[in-house]
Amino acid sequence: MPEIRKDPVFGRWVIIASGRGKRPNEFRPGDSGAPGVCPFCPGNEEETPPPVYTLPSREKGPAGWRLRVVANKYPALADGAPPQDSPDGMYDRMAGVGFHEVVIETPEHDAQMESLPVPELADVFRTFALRAAEMKKDPRIKYVMVFKNFGRGAGASRSHPHSQIIAMPIAPIRVAQEIDGAAVYRAKNGSCVFCDMLREESALEKRVVGENGGFLALAPYASRFSFETWILPKKHESHFELIDSGLAEDLAAIVKSVIGKLRASIEDLSYNLMIHTMPVQDGPAEHYHWHIEIMPKLSQAAGFEWGTGFYINTVPPETAAEMMNAGIRYRP
Amino acid sequence: MPEIRKDPVFGRWVIIASGRGKRPNEFRPGDSGAPGVCPFCPGNEEETPPPVYTLPSREKGPAGWRLRVVANKYPALADGAPPQDSPDGMYDRMAGVGFHEVVIETPEHDAQMESLPVPELADVFRTFALRAAEMKKDPRIKYVMVFKNFGRGAGASRSHPHSQIIAMPIAPIRVAQEIDGAAVYRAKNGSCVFCDMLREESALEKRVVGENGGFLALAPYASRFSFETWILPKKHESHFELIDSGLAEDLAAIVKSVIGKLRASIEDLSYNLMIHTMPVQDGPAEHYHWHIEIMPKLSQAAGFEWGTGFYINTVPPETAAEMMNAGIRYRP
Repeated sequence: MPEIRKDPVFGRWVIIASGRGKRPNEFRPGDSGAPGVCPFCPGNEEETPPPVYTLPSREKGPAGWRLRVVANKYPALADGAPPQDSPDGMYDRMAGVGFHEVVIETPEHDAQMESLPVPELADVFRTFALRAAEMKKDPRIKYVMVFKNFGRGAGASRSHPHSQIIAMPIAPIRVAQEIDGAAVYRAKNGSCVFCDMLREESALEKRVVGENGGFLALAPYASRFSFETWILPKKHESHFELIDSGLAEDLAAIVKSVIGKLRASIEDLSYNLMIHTMPVQDGPAEHYHWHIEIMPKLSQAAGFEWGTGFYINTVPPETAAEMMNAGIRYRP
Repeated sequence: MPEIRKDPVFGRWVIIASGRGKRPNEFRPGDSGAPGVCPFCPGNEEETPPPVYTLPSREKGPAGWRLRVVANKYPALADGAPPQDSPDGMYDRMAGVGFHEVVIETPEHDAQMESLPVPELADVFRTFALRAAEMKKDPRIKYVMVFKNFGRGAGASRSHPHSQIIAMPIAPIRVAQEIDGAAVYRAKNGSCVFCDMLREESALEKRVVGENGGFLALAPYASRFSFETWILPKKHESHFELIDSGLAEDLAAIVKSVIGKLRASIEDLSYNLMIHTMPVQDGPAEHYHWHIEIMPKLSQAAGFEWGTGFYINTVPPETAAEMMNAGIRYRP
């Protein structure tokens, strides 16, 4: 059973999950993981736990499915006893209760998120929302994190297109800080900081990298990473899992376009994509606005960034947006 | 001139320094940087800006110096106008005023921090303190960050032994949060959280990885990274730059020992080393205790960690300490 430990200074929680160290990594030299034995490929279904959710193929094909959700074989958190704070000397810890699922986005090993047709990619986002809605029925679950690590530079251990969902018994500190920051902004200005950002960035245009009926994509003003991109729904909504079917279609279209632009501008693209949303047991919030953050990995965050939370970005967001919109390749 | 921009939600500051993107990287394929042209090697002194501080060779050698401090040629922050908040639409920014220096720790290109004799390494730490004390005379400087990125996996761009010092016009948000957390602990418990940690870890022993007259080294209870190691002075002191000459000797000895143990346990070691200390213009603090944090880079922090501030560590600190103390090689 994984354990969650609290840092006594910072208040941050850390998952200690020694079982997860055993997961194979096809990018690690000497590790198993030739394409032929990919556990996410059709024909190897018995290599994963049984699916908790499946979408069938649209045509009669050999795979029989177009999307599968399975429990992570090497989970960061696991089902079990209710989480309870238990002191450990001067420290605090709790049982690592939660769920950790993998969304296999397509049967095609060599597909990319942005190469999927929009309706298929919309199904991926609908599935995220569906699983999050399912997980939040469990009152022990306080936060559901949906994320994708693409490429070796971003920490992925498999190349077959997949995303992950982790449901956890506490709201992580950085999420809490982000929501608190948005609440402070609303108390001061009487409005949602993300709604204000949408209005300001739409008017200025210089940091916009995509737009459709439902969403705006932008290079944020204080980008921590070169080519960092955020995608915000235009209509205020605090909880991602409430996304409707039509909006999922718009989301798929803009994600496909933005990742296509990142791929054109960045050689050997690796990225992390995360959905930022409210804690699932909280009601609708006027001050918080769910959104997606995409962080390409061009350079590694090194000592300075880790130590201070103070980032150094060598590509101004206005430059990144200009390059992405013109299809210019970045040469460091 | 670099610019510092504030994220309107989170309150975190980001340095936008496009000049820094031009720095050479000897680890990047196709980049200049064969050992023969290392700008930190004796004979190539004209490749760096003139030294702001030098320690002469102990013997008459070809180099003439055993340590040099030079301005970073590709600075994250630079001297200039006083930093002032200036609104930029709904956002805030200020001029990126500060100093960014490189400490060339030895003339020997292939040395390692832990291969230096203790007196030489003590000089490196004395130099950090001396430069920080010098930089804090400038009232614009609020924080001085000393850090070392060792190895490609940790973001280093040069292999010649060196560290960096960045003096900045604001205290970074993560530092402020750490100090606030320590203040909350003191308000609640009436003691310094780091002093309590020293007492508890000394008594328990299971997470201790080194000790001498002045310092204790430990694998922290809520380690974010596998083999994360902290080094704490036993005597309470909030400001690193006040370290005395004898204590610098003890610090050198324990750093040398700890990095040696990390190297024995971890293949192809990369790490970030940071000195955590109080903002330089603040007076002595009862609640904060300067210390060093060393983070080996075994796996990259991926989407989940970035998005949540919630870390997954697959090696419990008790296991890491046991392996380090027994000289056992970690095999993931």
